[in-house]
Amino acid sequence: MATLQSDKPMRQQVEEYISTLQEEIVAAFEALDPSAPKFKRDAWVRPQGGRGLSCVFAVPHPSSPAAAQQPAHTNTVLEKAGVNISIVHGSLPPAAVKQMRADHGSLKDLDVDEKGALPFFAAGISLVIHPRNPHAPTVHANYRYFEIADKVAQASTGSAPSQQPQGTVLAWWFGGGSDLTPSYLYESDAAHFHTTLRDAAASHGAALYPVLKKWCDEYFYIPHRGEARGIGGIFFDDLCDEDHKTFSAFGEVGGESADKGRPRSAEAILKMVKDLGNAFVPSYVPILKQRSSTPYTEAERRWQLLRRGRYVEFNLVYDRGTRFGLLTPGARIESVLMSLPEEARWEYMSDMGALGTREAEVQEVLQKPRVWVQ
Amino acid sequence: MATLQSDKPMRQQVEEYISTLQEEIVAAFEALDPSAPKFKRDAWVRPQGGRGLSCVFAVPHPSSPAAAQQPAHTNTVLEKAGVNISIVHGSLPPAAVKQMRADHGSLKDLDVDEKGALPFFAAGISLVIHPRNPHAPTVHANYRYFEIADKVAQASTGSAPSQQPQGTVLAWWFGGGSDLTPSYLYESDAAHFHTTLRDAAASHGAALYPVLKKWCDEYFYIPHRGEARGIGGIFFDDLCDEDHKTFSAFGEVGGESADKGRPRSAEAILKMVKDLGNAFVPSYVPILKQRSSTPYTEAERRWQLLRRGRYVEFNLVYDRGTRFGLLTPGARIESVLMSLPEEARWEYMSDMGALGTREAEVQEVLQKPRVWVQ
Repeated sequence: MATLQSDKPMRQQVEEYISTLQEEIVAAFEALDPSAPKFKRDAWVRPQGGRGLSCVFAVPHPSSPAAAQQPAHTNTVLEKAGVNISIVHGSLPPAAVKQMRADHGSLKDLDVDEKGALPFFAAGISLVIHPRNPHAPTVHANYRYFEIADKVAQASTGSAPSQQPQGTVLAWWFGGGSDLTPSYLYESDAAHFHTTLRDAAASHGAALYPVLKKWCDEYFYIPHRGEARGIGGIFFDDLCDEDHKTFSAFGEVGGESADKGRPRSAEAILKMVKDLGNAFVPSYVPILKQRSSTPYTEAERRWQLLRRGRYVEFNLVYDRGTRFGLLTPGARIESVLMSLPEEARWEYMSDMGALGTREAEVQEVLQKPRVWVQ
Repeated sequence: MATLQSDKPMRQQVEEYISTLQEEIVAAFEALDPSAPKFKRDAWVRPQGGRGLSCVFAVPHPSSPAAAQQPAHTNTVLEKAGVNISIVHGSLPPAAVKQMRADHGSLKDLDVDEKGALPFFAAGISLVIHPRNPHAPTVHANYRYFEIADKVAQASTGSAPSQQPQGTVLAWWFGGGSDLTPSYLYESDAAHFHTTLRDAAASHGAALYPVLKKWCDEYFYIPHRGEARGIGGIFFDDLCDEDHKTFSAFGEVGGESADKGRPRSAEAILKMVKDLGNAFVPSYVPILKQRSSTPYTEAERRWQLLRRGRYVEFNLVYDRGTRFGLLTPGARIESVLMSLPEEARWEYMSDMGALGTREAEVQEVLQKPRVWVQ
C-alpha cells in the first residue's frame, strides 16, 4: 500500500489521512460514552475555496428548546469537544507570504511585492476535548500540511480540493502537535501521555521526541501569567526538507545532528505525522476513561473553570492558529473558536491554591515544566 | 478653585481628579446595594515606578473558604466589578515610541533609535461593571492622561508619582470614553446613557458628541463576529493641542471645523474629561437600579453568559489597552484583566436568537449601530 500511496500527490495523501483519523477519533469518543448524544457532523464549504467537516460534541443548555426534546444529559463524559478537518486553498496576501519567508529558504529569494498574492493549499485536523470531570484533563491535537505554489495555475472550485490544478510548489511544510491540560495533576497520566507520544516518535530519530517536547513547553506558554497552558506534549512547525533552526539549535543526540536525523522528505514526514496522529487515541482515551468516574466537588468544578479561563487567555491572546483564523476574512469563526471551553471563570486575585493543596501542585508544575519520560 | 488648580502640573491635576472620581463611583455602587459586601480596596506599588488603587467587587464562590465566613450573597446587584486607578511612570521602549509618532507631530522629528527609551507618565481611571441581572447592562469607562518626556531628568521612586522630577514634555495627550453593553435591549436605557453623555459634552463644542459617538462605534467592534461589543457611547484618543485626524475627517458641524471647535489646550481637555467623567454615575446608575429588580430565567442567564463570551473575545483579541497591558513586562495583570466577567460561555454554532425574539433584537442593533440621540 505504501508504494501505491506515494504515487498520489501529497495534498491528496494528507486529505485522505486526516479524514480517516477524524473518523477514528470521533468513533473512539462515541464508544466511550454510548448513552451520550452523538457528535454533530457539520460539513461546510468555503466560498473562497475548499471544504471542511466539523464534528462537535455539546449538550444543549437545560434552558434551550433543544433540551426539551431529549432526555437531560448532565453526566456525559465530555462537556464540549470538536474534532475538525479542513482542506482549503486560496490566495495568500503578500504580507503573509513575507512573514513565512523567514522560515523557508525556498521563499527567501521571492520578490513578494512583485509577485503579489500567491496560491496556497492547507489541509489539517484540529481537535480540542474538554471533559466534564475536573479530574479529567483537556487535550488538544493538530496536524497540518501547507503548500505555497507559483502563480502558474489558478485554483478553481468544484472538484475535491486536494485534486485541483496547481502551479509549481514553491514551499511546503508540516506542522502539528498534541498537548495535555489537566486541572489537577496525576503524574501517571502525564507519564502515560508523554510515553505514548515518545514511543510513536521513536522510529523517526532519537532527537524527535526530546526536540518536540521542549518545543511544546516553549510554545504553549502564557507569558502574562508566567505559566504553561498545560503539562506539554509535542509541537512542531515548518518541517520540510530544508535545514530547520529549532532542530539545528538542539545540537546532537547520540552523536548525530538532531536536524540531520529527523524525517526530511515529505513522505518521511507524513509517515511521522501518521504515527503521531495514530497515537492520539491511545495517549488520551485511557486517561479520560479512568478520570471520568472520579467524584468531584463544587470547589473542584470552580477550579476547573478558573483553569479554563487561562486556556481562553492563551488561545485568544497568543495561539497563532486562532489569531490567524480570527484575522482571516472568510474564515469559519465557529470552527476557529470551537477550542474555547463551554464555560470559563475569572476572579480578581483568585486564590490559586495554598501550599500543599492539589491546586498549588498543578500551579507548580505549570510554572516549572517537568521531564515526564526519558 | 479653577485658577488655583491650574497652577499645578497637569500630572498632579489628573491624579487628583481620578482619585476623587474613583471614590465617588465606588460610593455610588455601595450605596445602591447596602447589604452587599463592600468593594475591596487594594493599593499597589509598581516596582518600576508608580502606584495604583484597585477597588474590586466580587462575591466569594460558594465553595470557597471565604464564603463559609459570611452569609451567602447570591442576589447582589453586581456580579463582578472593578474601578481602578493607576499613576505610573517609566521608560517607553523605542518600538512603542515609534508607534506613537504617527499620531503626534511633536514626536515625528525625534530620532527614536538615537534617543533610545524615553520616560513616560500615565495616569488613568478604568472601570468595568458586570451586573448579575441579565437585564442590566455591562458598562465600561476609562479616562487617561499620557506624557512622553525628554531624557533630561530620571524618574525616581519615593514621592507621589505625579510630583516626581521630569524632563521636558515632548508630547502629551488624553484618551478615554464610556460605553454600554446590554444583553437585552432597552431603548430607553440606550437613549438615557447617550443623552447624559451628549449633555456632558455639550459645552465643549457642537462636534464633540457626534465625533466621539461615531468613534466609539468604530472602536468597540468585533470584526470576526461582524458585530459591535455593545450599543456604544463615546471614545477618543490622542487628544492634544495638535490637529487631530479623526476630528478633521469629520468635517464641519454648524459651519465650524470639528477639529477647531473642540477643546485643544490641556486645561480645556481636562475640563472636558471631568465633565464626561462626572457624567458616569448619572449615565449608568439609574439604569442599573431599574433593571436589577427585573425577574429573569435560566435561559436569559445563558444568553448573558454567551454575550459575555463575546466581551471576552473583544477584550483579549482587540482591545488596545488590554493587549498593551498583557504585553508590558511588570504590568499588574490582575488589574489589566479585571475587565473580564466572572463567567462566560461559548457554544458551538449557538442559537443567537430567532427572528422576533429579544435575543435577535439585540443582535440586530449590534450589527447595525443606531443613532440614539441627536
